[in-house]
Amino acid sequence: MSDRLEQQFAFLNEADRLKSVLRATTLVDGSRPENSGEHSWHLALYALVLADQAGPGVDINRVIRMLLVHDLVEIDVGDVPIHSANGLAHGSVETVAAEAKAADRIFGLLPRDLGHNLRALWEEFEAAETPDAIFAKSLDRVQPVMANLMSGGGTWTTYNVTAEQLESRVGVKIAKGAPRLWNWIKGQTAAFFAR
Amino acid sequence: MSDRLEQQFAFLNEADRLKSVLRATTLVDGSRPENSGEHSWHLALYALVLADQAGPGVDINRVIRMLLVHDLVEIDVGDVPIHSANGLAHGSVETVAAEAKAADRIFGLLPRDLGHNLRALWEEFEAAETPDAIFAKSLDRVQPVMANLMSGGGTWTTYNVTAEQLESRVGVKIAKGAPRLWNWIKGQTAAFFAR
Repeated sequence: MSDRLEQQFAFLNEADRLKSVLRATTLVDGSRPENSGEHSWHLALYALVLADQAGPGVDINRVIRMLLVHDLVEIDVGDVPIHSANGLAHGSVETVAAEAKAADRIFGLLPRDLGHNLRALWEEFEAAETPDAIFAKSLDRVQPVMANLMSGGGTWTTYNVTAEQLESRVGVKIAKGAPRLWNWIKGQTAAFFAR
Repeated sequence: MSDRLEQQFAFLNEADRLKSVLRATTLVDGSRPENSGEHSWHLALYALVLADQAGPGVDINRVIRMLLVHDLVEIDVGDVPIHSANGLAHGSVETVAAEAKAADRIFGLLPRDLGHNLRALWEEFEAAETPDAIFAKSLDRVQPVMANLMSGGGTWTTYNVTAEQLESRVGVKIAKGAPRLWNWIKGQTAAFFAR
């Protein structure tokens, strides 16, 4: 059992580093960049609170588990912002390869059974094909929209994002997993983009 | 539906403030104090990874949900460290009353059904009587022990904590929900307290 606990804590102590990975998005009050650890907590809370927005067949407990591990690869790769043109491109072949290598290392710290299960959850999130993953991805797109709205622009201002770009880069993905939610959020963003 | 979403996001935006509540414990690398948002994420991940340490009758999905909301009252009350003698005392009548008032305000932002459910989860955690809450409390005590171990002392050094105080303030509670885990961790801490 000791070896198993050593592996479990090697992973949990390594995971701590996600708290030092900074995102492009700020806190709601705009005071500082958000880190990927606290972002993962906020997203899991989103799933708990917005469960009534999930489509049929979505298991919120699995969505929460998925969101808890969805950004761990950023410990090696960093956050790859959607709206930025610098560094690794979001969804590029290079980014996908770097994240797979990071997953090998990080989930590989765990006992084999646990590492296999959590990596499968992360891969399911990345593939965005199951109802659980599609809803999780929607929430991952909603949370930065709310932070930008609350902080008065955030990354939309930094990267000169237009309403059309928000629709094509973000809105389409939110609408796929949570159509009523995107409809409501779009209404909230209208005043900002009409300014 | 719009009113409901407004209430859900009023809560989720308010919850963001937990990322600005600082704890006595530092990150594993000792670089800065941990905040209660990222702490809540790390704990939920602890539950996912250490599920095999839970006793019979523990529902890990409920433990994870509980841990996601367990510190929200700190938005109003702040973190009340176990080892510190300053400010509000951990578990004192004053702290309990202040936290109940905070729960009224924060969970009260939600639609009635959701607010009721999440507040009940938080109250169950605080009461520490059900198997789920007892295990959740154990994890909440384990995580700072690991941070102190990894960072070379942390709050044990700050507050001159002895091995006996660690046993009585922390170990007893960890052992209640996860006895094998406390046995292993105590072995890990022996070298530090023998220095």
